[in-house]
Amino acid sequence: MIYLDNNGTTQVLPEVIEAMMPYFTTDWGNPSSSYKFGSKLKTVIETAREQVADLIGAHPREVIFTSCGTESNNAAIHAALKAHPGKRHLITSAVEHSSVLNYCMALEQEGYRVTYLPVDRDGLLKLADLEHAITDETAVVSLMWANNETGVLFPVKEIAELCRSRGVLYHCDAVQAASKIAIDVPKISIDYLSLTGHKFHAPKGIGALYVRRKTPISPYVYGGHQEHGLRGGTESVPLIVGMGKAAQLARRHLLVYDKKVRPLRDTLEDGILNSVPNTELNGHRTERLANTSNITFHGVESEALLILLDKEGICASSGSACLADSDEPSHVIKAMKPDSTASQQMIRFSLDVGNSQEEIRGTVAAVQRCVRTLHSSY
Amino acid sequence: MIYLDNNGTTQVLPEVIEAMMPYFTTDWGNPSSSYKFGSKLKTVIETAREQVADLIGAHPREVIFTSCGTESNNAAIHAALKAHPGKRHLITSAVEHSSVLNYCMALEQEGYRVTYLPVDRDGLLKLADLEHAITDETAVVSLMWANNETGVLFPVKEIAELCRSRGVLYHCDAVQAASKIAIDVPKISIDYLSLTGHKFHAPKGIGALYVRRKTPISPYVYGGHQEHGLRGGTESVPLIVGMGKAAQLARRHLLVYDKKVRPLRDTLEDGILNSVPNTELNGHRTERLANTSNITFHGVESEALLILLDKEGICASSGSACLADSDEPSHVIKAMKPDSTASQQMIRFSLDVGNSQEEIRGTVAAVQRCVRTLHSSY
Repeated sequence: MIYLDNNGTTQVLPEVIEAMMPYFTTDWGNPSSSYKFGSKLKTVIETAREQVADLIGAHPREVIFTSCGTESNNAAIHAALKAHPGKRHLITSAVEHSSVLNYCMALEQEGYRVTYLPVDRDGLLKLADLEHAITDETAVVSLMWANNETGVLFPVKEIAELCRSRGVLYHCDAVQAASKIAIDVPKISIDYLSLTGHKFHAPKGIGALYVRRKTPISPYVYGGHQEHGLRGGTESVPLIVGMGKAAQLARRHLLVYDKKVRPLRDTLEDGILNSVPNTELNGHRTERLANTSNITFHGVESEALLILLDKEGICASSGSACLADSDEPSHVIKAMKPDSTASQQMIRFSLDVGNSQEEIRGTVAAVQRCVRTLHSSY
Repeated sequence: MIYLDNNGTTQVLPEVIEAMMPYFTTDWGNPSSSYKFGSKLKTVIETAREQVADLIGAHPREVIFTSCGTESNNAAIHAALKAHPGKRHLITSAVEHSSVLNYCMALEQEGYRVTYLPVDRDGLLKLADLEHAITDETAVVSLMWANNETGVLFPVKEIAELCRSRGVLYHCDAVQAASKIAIDVPKISIDYLSLTGHKFHAPKGIGALYVRRKTPISPYVYGGHQEHGLRGGTESVPLIVGMGKAAQLARRHLLVYDKKVRPLRDTLEDGILNSVPNTELNGHRTERLANTSNITFHGVESEALLILLDKEGICASSGSACLADSDEPSHVIKAMKPDSTASQQMIRFSLDVGNSQEEIRGTVAAVQRCVRTLHSSY
């Protein structure tokens, strides 16, 4: 198997499993207990919180564990709106993850007004558009760091400064960016930042929300006193430990991530674009994550190509896994290239440090074969 | 260690860990993928859904996986309110779990009116109170099946019938009841029912919400197409599998649960009440789960007794683990006995089939010693 869907999910690392196991097998107590068998787990959670905080340069007290990136995204927007009950306007972009877009659409039903900023053909945002969209009614801006389908990077620092200068809260979905580029929240005035563990080798089912000190926050999942009363529900200790360990490893890998992954991605991308006719890159050539390549194969339906690639042992995707069950074309590519069929005829390859040059060469050859087969079958 | 805090959390069973492991180690794909390595996991999730549905007699399509019982409780109430946007009244009780009470309080801030039904000294509810509280404005009634602190059972069947006859949606928090008593949803007109895995030997971090067919439902965590679009977030496959396996085992254990646990609990309860002076049972003697014993030790602070018991290797609690970090007296016992100090001087023992008569005898003796120590030290 050649796994090139690391923006979908990643392998749980053996070190992460090893770190989690004791909290399934022997130390399965409830951290909120008064007896030591349970209460000693509070320390374990705090260690994991430090590890996750470290990955983004945050203070541990600024990190709340959630069940996933989707919950973190919902929770951040919810908190911002609750902090400004009089303000009924949000700004986001047309290419956000479904957890932001679908939550915004639900808010529209409740009477909120939402501006969906457009992107250009390269997937880039115009800061002037954001500037014009902000009004006195705007409670929060939610704009992602790196796009999950194309890897395109938004100018987060400039967005954050603009929001700060206009007194608007800024939430950043960094689910795809974290572990792939260095994030240092003290240097950027982001108010809320979403993370999820399974994009960097922790298991699925655990996420985190960074909330800058003094930024207003309220629970999204209301319950007991867990997470300083900001997220109810008995703590999933093993998964929290797993996310902590994975964050620690991701921070180390950051030093070599770009150097290892970019050449592999470029070999793949150039190999396909140069040898397969009627192909087209989706997403800006440089303002982009080092691991992601989104390519349109004109005249080839995504699903047909994915099936053939799967038979060759290659795992890739036609966009967000979260929307893969739907037959709808990618809303991201559609927003970038509304006049073309690019959104139904594209493949996302997302690499990781574990991939090899051999795998990449094999993939280029397989893609050539598969596309040839499909073209000849039409 | 003698573990008597099974209403707080339970040991993850070895069979459950064994069932989960492959989905951490080898089959770590994203179920929403188009390639087989990921998509084959859809079947795995559906098997777990059948197992959880089986535990309560539901159809698998009526089960949505969530991250915990707290989320399930929030989600059910949220869905009911969304279904009736014009109705701004909820009914619950003063002894519900914090995930219901704190969510209701947040709703009050948003302009909803909430009736908190009282209970009597035994923790029982008067159906007439519920009947009088329901108005044309009532969107939903949320009343638990078994109380987590006392084990007291509410008359769920009668509540359900009353709600149905008045056209009001009924949500039942069955987090403590499931696996301890037989639940058969087709026989009771409950609309929403909350479950969590870690109360019956699955890991923490996975829950479920039963939603009766044709009952209105909308997402609480908005995101991708997971769970038929009703709960966003990449599925936590290993934990879902773990909850399924645990549900299957719990269903089997149900046949012997009462027979095994009740005599142990009664030995413990009678042993303490008969030998330790100034003790008092909290909760109805018979309308109660077989595993729970909540006892007030007059003149003895809960925390002091728990510390001594912990030193003797006994794990018990002073109420809900979700509120253990707070110094507040139990809201449940306070609602039952507002005129007494019972709420600050009580211990909850919650047993499981794994406990032995030897452990129980040891616990009675330890309680006697600890109370004597504390009385002599005052």
